[in-house]
Amino acid sequence: MSAPRTPLSPTPRSTPKRLKERARSDRAELDAVLDAGLVCHLGVLFDGAPVVLPTVYGRDGDTLYLHGSTGAGNLRAALRGPVSVAVTLVDGVVYARSAMNFSMNYRSAVVHGRPVEVTDPARRLDALRVIIEHSAPGAWDRVRRPDKKELAATIVLALDLTEASVKVRSGDPGDDAADIATGGIWAGVLPLRQIWDAPITSADLEPGIPVPQDVSERPEPGRLPVRR
Amino acid sequence: MSAPRTPLSPTPRSTPKRLKERARSDRAELDAVLDAGLVCHLGVLFDGAPVVLPTVYGRDGDTLYLHGSTGAGNLRAALRGPVSVAVTLVDGVVYARSAMNFSMNYRSAVVHGRPVEVTDPARRLDALRVIIEHSAPGAWDRVRRPDKKELAATIVLALDLTEASVKVRSGDPGDDAADIATGGIWAGVLPLRQIWDAPITSADLEPGIPVPQDVSERPEPGRLPVRR
Repeated sequence: MSAPRTPLSPTPRSTPKRLKERARSDRAELDAVLDAGLVCHLGVLFDGAPVVLPTVYGRDGDTLYLHGSTGAGNLRAALRGPVSVAVTLVDGVVYARSAMNFSMNYRSAVVHGRPVEVTDPARRLDALRVIIEHSAPGAWDRVRRPDKKELAATIVLALDLTEASVKVRSGDPGDDAADIATGGIWAGVLPLRQIWDAPITSADLEPGIPVPQDVSERPEPGRLPVRR
Repeated sequence: MSAPRTPLSPTPRSTPKRLKERARSDRAELDAVLDAGLVCHLGVLFDGAPVVLPTVYGRDGDTLYLHGSTGAGNLRAALRGPVSVAVTLVDGVVYARSAMNFSMNYRSAVVHGRPVEVTDPARRLDALRVIIEHSAPGAWDRVRRPDKKELAATIVLALDLTEASVKVRSGDPGDDAADIATGGIWAGVLPLRQIWDAPITSADLEPGIPVPQDVSERPEPGRLPVRR
């Protein structure tokens, strides 16, 4: 987290064309959305067509890390061409007075770029730590680390965060003045939130292993997690 | 919902290459994931690069509907080339005994194809109804319908659901036998769920309008909604 920060440098591709008031060219906001998300949607080119797939990720400073099996076609495709990665948190449904003003409250980050494969063994292991810790903060120090065979079957990609955009919508519906004046129709927001249910211990776990505190007391998802 | 159903017809692009046991070539399962999601991630080609953006959608029978402003670059791009649409529901974090067996429990649908623009006025209005009702079931009959000007500024796309895949992961971690034998590390699932918080009435709403029942008693998201 000590790496120098580059400001968001919007290009035509990463500058939202519509609803510019929802775009926030602020690096801290980008980090907050990426850190609050659990999965991203990775778009790659496959035979000239876009293919979008959900996958886990992690962020360290100015780098987004992705990983997968060496046999996974989408990661091989990600190395051959440009990619787009979106992380979206839906915060509520916006009920308007008119159909066309319905919307979502959300936080959305989209990163564009060309990922590179991480091959240096130490950086590779650290990238895997970053990804696992993003999915399960506090778990890395407890679990068995990747062995030689697992590492050989894993591809790790690094994507620079320099070309990215953030969009945030929050608050009340934006109804037309005429509809507000007409009145008679409820308008507002139905907030949406993610929660953890109680942990479910694996059926094959031996007795006597308590649920770790980082699991049982994991902070609510979708908020800014505490990062080391 | 009375249109004939086509079975999922996996092509090389829509057949998951890895972890085939997670793929379910079942049309009902595809519908269930699409109906339970709130937003999709639409991947389009933009200057030869994939661009992934979150957007709302709706399903009617064998058709996925998308809409947006006529000025939105991603919808114009969607009409020029193939697209990929992903809907993902994350159901939990899978804590394993080893780093590389960490995973997510999830339901994921990915649709590929070439969308067509919906131009017939009646079908267009019905598609907008389907999209609004997906975001806010029960709201369409209450709110002001799109007027001529709004319709002229809106593009509606229809994407056939014939080329699609569904992946579902649920249940315990899949740890290696050796790690299970070694023991000593907690393994299990931390389930994740979406909930609605209490509705927030818009600050500009006149007094005396109660929160509609379809808002105050909206069923928990992420489950299969009741469709009319």
